[in-house]
Amino acid sequence: MSYNTREKWTHRLHEIIFEADTKAGKTFDVILIFSIVVSVLVVMLDSVAEYRAMYGDWFYSIEWFFTILFTVEYFLRIISVKKPSGYIFSFYGLVDLFSILPTYISILLPGSQYFLVIRILRVLRVFRVLKFTQYLIEVNQLQKALASSRRKITVFIFTVVTITVIVGSLMYVIEGTENGFTSIPKGIYWAIVTLTTVGYGDISPQTNLGQMLSAVIMIMGYGIIAVPTGIVTVELSRAQPKGRSTEVCRYCSREGHDSDAEYCKYCGGKLNA
Amino acid sequence: MSYNTREKWTHRLHEIIFEADTKAGKTFDVILIFSIVVSVLVVMLDSVAEYRAMYGDWFYSIEWFFTILFTVEYFLRIISVKKPSGYIFSFYGLVDLFSILPTYISILLPGSQYFLVIRILRVLRVFRVLKFTQYLIEVNQLQKALASSRRKITVFIFTVVTITVIVGSLMYVIEGTENGFTSIPKGIYWAIVTLTTVGYGDISPQTNLGQMLSAVIMIMGYGIIAVPTGIVTVELSRAQPKGRSTEVCRYCSREGHDSDAEYCKYCGGKLNA
Amino acid sequence: MSYNTREKWTHRLHEIIFEADTKAGKTFDVILIFSIVVSVLVVMLDSVAEYRAMYGDWFYSIEWFFTILFTVEYFLRIISVKKPSGYIFSFYGLVDLFSILPTYISILLPGSQYFLVIRILRVLRVFRVLKFTQYLIEVNQLQKALASSRRKITVFIFTVVTITVIVGSLMYVIEGTENGFTSIPKGIYWAIVTLTTVGYGDISPQTNLGQMLSAVIMIMGYGIIAVPTGIVTVELSRAQPKGRSTEVCRYCSREGHDSDAEYCKYCGGKLNA
Amino acid sequence: MSYNTREKWTHRLHEIIFEADTKAGKTFDVILIFSIVVSVLVVMLDSVAEYRAMYGDWFYSIEWFFTILFTVEYFLRIISVKKPSGYIFSFYGLVDLFSILPTYISILLPGSQYFLVIRILRVLRVFRVLKFTQYLIEVNQLQKALASSRRKITVFIFTVVTITVIVGSLMYVIEGTENGFTSIPKGIYWAIVTLTTVGYGDISPQTNLGQMLSAVIMIMGYGIIAVPTGIVTVELSRAQPKGRSTEVCRYCSREGHDSDAEYCKYCGGKLNA
Repeated sequence: MSYNTREKWTHRLHEIIFEADTKAGKTFDVILIFSIVVSVLVVMLDSVAEYRAMYGDWFYSIEWFFTILFTVEYFLRIISVKKPSGYIFSFYGLVDLFSILPTYISILLPGSQYFLVIRILRVLRVFRVLKFTQYLIEVNQLQKALASSRRKITVFIFTVVTITVIVGSLMYVIEGTENGFTSIPKGIYWAIVTLTTVGYGDISPQTNLGQMLSAVIMIMGYGIIAVPTGIVTVELSRAQPKGRSTEVCRYCSREGHDSDAEYCKYCGGKLNA
Repeated sequence: MSYNTREKWTHRLHEIIFEADTKAGKTFDVILIFSIVVSVLVVMLDSVAEYRAMYGDWFYSIEWFFTILFTVEYFLRIISVKKPSGYIFSFYGLVDLFSILPTYISILLPGSQYFLVIRILRVLRVFRVLKFTQYLIEVNQLQKALASSRRKITVFIFTVVTITVIVGSLMYVIEGTENGFTSIPKGIYWAIVTLTTVGYGDISPQTNLGQMLSAVIMIMGYGIIAVPTGIVTVELSRAQPKGRSTEVCRYCSREGHDSDAEYCKYCGGKLNA
Repeated sequence: MSYNTREKWTHRLHEIIFEADTKAGKTFDVILIFSIVVSVLVVMLDSVAEYRAMYGDWFYSIEWFFTILFTVEYFLRIISVKKPSGYIFSFYGLVDLFSILPTYISILLPGSQYFLVIRILRVLRVFRVLKFTQYLIEVNQLQKALASSRRKITVFIFTVVTITVIVGSLMYVIEGTENGFTSIPKGIYWAIVTLTTVGYGDISPQTNLGQMLSAVIMIMGYGIIAVPTGIVTVELSRAQPKGRSTEVCRYCSREGHDSDAEYCKYCGGKLNA
Repeated sequence: MSYNTREKWTHRLHEIIFEADTKAGKTFDVILIFSIVVSVLVVMLDSVAEYRAMYGDWFYSIEWFFTILFTVEYFLRIISVKKPSGYIFSFYGLVDLFSILPTYISILLPGSQYFLVIRILRVLRVFRVLKFTQYLIEVNQLQKALASSRRKITVFIFTVVTITVIVGSLMYVIEGTENGFTSIPKGIYWAIVTLTTVGYGDISPQTNLGQMLSAVIMIMGYGIIAVPTGIVTVELSRAQPKGRSTEVCRYCSREGHDSDAEYCKYCGGKLNA
């Protein structure tokens, strides 16, 4: 195989595996998503004792089928990229590796049942495919909004952690070990469960003073939960253009027209003319 | 009955049953809503053991009264539309059918108690009437806002599912069967209960590591719950024209102009002239 | 006492009791709020068995002191208004009456312990005073925003009720009596507890299918909780003017200037000149 | 040491301790944050019975090390400021004092275990350092948004408290002592737990009427939780200038111009000239 043929061949392979513009690339993506979903379902069902007892052998066979399939795919990816190390140490490269490695290790180290759970990371592989779809714009807008609210959310989380540390310590003193607040970390855990309005009820205040303080925290939690929502909403509304076109009127040179406008709303001149 | 008389008669019937413009149509709607609400209440109360023991016979009679009433209404609907098959296989046509069928089947198959629950779908019939009321605009605005946020919400739900799959598997490994995390699906169920801040407390982390991870998930949940709220808020504020004048162009009769517009943006005609 | 003197005297009384412009009126309001808060606290503490055992006599005396005070106030209000029946049957007139009546009835009907709870409605009287304070604008803005979102929220609640009716019935069939879903109303109660993310955990799904359906409901609840938030946010942002002045430039006649602008941002002409 | 030397020396000290512009100041801040975090972690872990049993002596030594360090820092702060009393009675001055005092008192009053928890207030000291970082703008924006929504949130909390008082009393009557609603304050505690969607489940309605009322409260809670979110979102979107250019006027050096401005709105000077 001449260098050129190989070059052409890996280029074609790259197009199929990494992109979704061609028909073959799209077919590959559909098969890949289907394989990922099925293999993740098998990992999940295999953890249910009764299903493993009944269908354990089937699960074992299916698991090996997909592991070999993903292994072949992994090496095809390495071959088809120009700089293999770039792919191998990328986020998705590592996810791909961790998706197949545990199955092989399980032969060498029998009984490493919990280790096999790492295969669940396969579910992350679906995101790669998502990137090529029509959802790309939505993914980008959401990422952009979250990225620009990153610093505000950091300040917010920092404040929440401080509140829970102080409130958790206070409740540890008020309620004490006999009511389940056995230590400050336990009190902080309770404070987080309460402030986020999860409220398991595994630990709950029993004393009058404790219940009064909790009530205050919960009403505070109301206001606190409003803050990240406000931050993300503002960023999202900025990430999203307001349906205005950027067109400038040829006659009066003013802009700010709606995207469905046909005439300039200031001078009546024809737009798009 | 001549064809014309029949035509006129079904047209009149259609007006009463399907529309709400005439006085008879409005009366029909009020009676229908009342019948639906009462019959749904009967289905609900009939499921309470003590009430069935006491008023079972009454419930039985009322149920048959409404079933026959709805059956008559069903056939009148079929007769009054131009294309019966179009109605029968429409969403509301099927709901209408499922609202009456179970009662008849219960004679043929005695003991099919759970089957009767399907009648609860009657509650959906109220929405049809809602459409004719002054709430139509609100229904449309909300539907429009949800429809345009559909793709962002899909990406969001996809991300949430991925997070819960990974977190649920992790907790299955950390907490183990002895603390109620008997399988990965159970762990995922716990992760969803926690991330959505429902927090039943039927399964809750017992180990220190598990509680630490939960705390992180809950604080993450704070930020995550902000995303759909942000998406819907932005879409709602777009669905609702802001600062638009209600003026209609004298030349092309179209509206939706900005309050600072001087010329119609569709035909270029002078506004306010 | 001549008619004129009486007229003047009741007018002065009205000013003190119903308004807050004069110094006497403000003093009256402060004393009133203090009395309301103390008497409500006494009603609350009196319901705690141990406190009643210890301070029952004190509570009894304080209760009578405030009841007589509020009774005097009630008759002064009746005297001072022009049309007593208008006040007596108004919302606040009825609240005032229900605040004092139970104490008197308790002498006639001993043992009517639960009846005395009606006195807690006194807490509503504080709102009347709030109306005269600097919070009036905030109260109005919030009321306006809620009023304009009233119809959207009605549609929303209607949808939520429909979902909970269907989901609750489905869970009644899936989980059955043995897992706590003893009737359809109980199932609906569970569905509301879950969809609103309260999640007591007094009833929680035990079967695999039930837990799967719950998980779907919870993730749906995510999106659903976003809707009222979006509605209220949009209405609030409309109720609140954007900090723009309505001034028009004298030179180029354009508006949209910030409220702190001194020169026209389009032509540089002096504003407010 | 001459007055001038002392002056210069305290000025340099002030720069290092209170500011973050110099390299020494930044180093000081990093060491301080590290010390605070470690000492807070020690206080937390010391409250866990098993860790205290194992590493109690280590914790004791580390605690004294940091107490002495913070004491030195405290006195350096007093020396370096122009007006010591201003610092001592400021918020952070008191936090600094409460961070070290309990350790000293624990020698005088052995067994005052719970008293030591006050040291957890050290966590607040981190906020002082945060002020010097790049997060200052975010902190300010969030504070500004919360400050301007202060009055609306007060009205809101006032309304929520009123609702919980009435609903809590009602549930006390409906459910009664046998279902855990032992007093009105307990009923109010339950109402707050429910309305904020925390839902521990330690107290939950058992009667049919109680569950119906709860369901209504929860659906109301939906709408209620929307209000603070709406308030904060609107304020945040106002705190954040939208579509403003970052241009500074060449004539009056002021900024905050709209992106479509051509002339400075303060002095009328041409922008972009």
